[in-house]
Amino acid sequence: MTAPQPASESPARITADHPGVNELFALLAYGEVAAFYRLTEEARMAPDLRGRINMASMAAAEMAHYELLREALETRGVDVVPAMTRYASALENYHRLTTPSTWLEALVKTYVGDALAADFYLEIADVLPDEVASVVRGVLSETGHSQFVVAEVRKAVTTSGRQRSRLALWSRRLLGEAITQAQYVLAERDELVDLVLAGPGGLGQVADFFDRLQRTHAERMGELGLT
Amino acid sequence: MTAPQPASESPARITADHPGVNELFALLAYGEVAAFYRLTEEARMAPDLRGRINMASMAAAEMAHYELLREALETRGVDVVPAMTRYASALENYHRLTTPSTWLEALVKTYVGDALAADFYLEIADVLPDEVASVVRGVLSETGHSQFVVAEVRKAVTTSGRQRSRLALWSRRLLGEAITQAQYVLAERDELVDLVLAGPGGLGQVADFFDRLQRTHAERMGELGLT
Repeated sequence: MTAPQPASESPARITADHPGVNELFALLAYGEVAAFYRLTEEARMAPDLRGRINMASMAAAEMAHYELLREALETRGVDVVPAMTRYASALENYHRLTTPSTWLEALVKTYVGDALAADFYLEIADVLPDEVASVVRGVLSETGHSQFVVAEVRKAVTTSGRQRSRLALWSRRLLGEAITQAQYVLAERDELVDLVLAGPGGLGQVADFFDRLQRTHAERMGELGLT
Repeated sequence: MTAPQPASESPARITADHPGVNELFALLAYGEVAAFYRLTEEARMAPDLRGRINMASMAAAEMAHYELLREALETRGVDVVPAMTRYASALENYHRLTTPSTWLEALVKTYVGDALAADFYLEIADVLPDEVASVVRGVLSETGHSQFVVAEVRKAVTTSGRQRSRLALWSRRLLGEAITQAQYVLAERDELVDLVLAGPGGLGQVADFFDRLQRTHAERMGELGLT
């Protein structure tokens, strides 16, 4: 019987020059630009000027995140636009497969997308070296613009059980598609898989991560009145 | 023969509680939101990701201007969205009547619109009380995101005399429609007319203002290679 090897449980910490860091930043950067354009597109369904302004403010915040990532990539000597382009298909597929058909669906998508991004940023920051984590946390500190959604969705689902069921289904679909596309990205980009696996905890952590995503997703559905 | 009366040449300075100030801020606020959505709409014509990112950054800057105006209006006790809505038709008409049909037209519109707005903000700040002018100058300090346009337009018109003529005509049309809509707004909103006329110089200044707009517009056409 072999004793557990502490060395194998705490692999070398990721360093800032890990090739996966550039890939992660490029993925996040494309995600911000894609979110910008989808929010502005989906804002067409807004019933009034107030809704369009809220969506525009959210979209503008995505570009502030993008600027942080662009600066970090340029500092690292990366040619930003070609690096981002590699993640176009996964992110465009996510948005294409989750095109809302009503304003309430658009609101829920905004809220869920913002929250999933925040979860992901927080989790990934924990396994990254400080210098890299500070970029990711800087982006995270800018989130939370989607609170305006809560009041509007809660109001709608309180008065309609049918809306509640529809939107609950919709929110599960959003999480499912996000996880599917995340898995496609990981399957295609070895550097990213290596980045995730290299952190303390390794593969077990990835499974835990998806579990935690589902738990926090369930909490947020509660906040929206969708349980 | 009557000696000139200095008193009549320097009317009382505008005070911060002039009712035209709320109207001015509401007009500018709607202008920022309208510009945001038009930029993102027109960005669909961008030939590549780089163009879409540049347009998104410009659009995000418009929302930063909007936030400054919204804060100023709220501080002044104004219900922001209804106040803005009064200016929807003039601004939507301007954009509808100047819908670009090519990416180069979209670029020129972005540049001209940004520059006209900057001119307007600078001029109007000069006749406003300090407290109000600082809001307007704060918004102005955020402009200048459209420099990316210059290189792209210059390159296109250097190699094509036909493009140069077309875009020169287009830029004149943009200025013409902007002035037309500005005149409609002034004709409908007495408080705004009063604000403009109450400044030192009075009516003569308005004519001078439109003259200066045309001069700076001509300079900018030169920068774009459209002369």
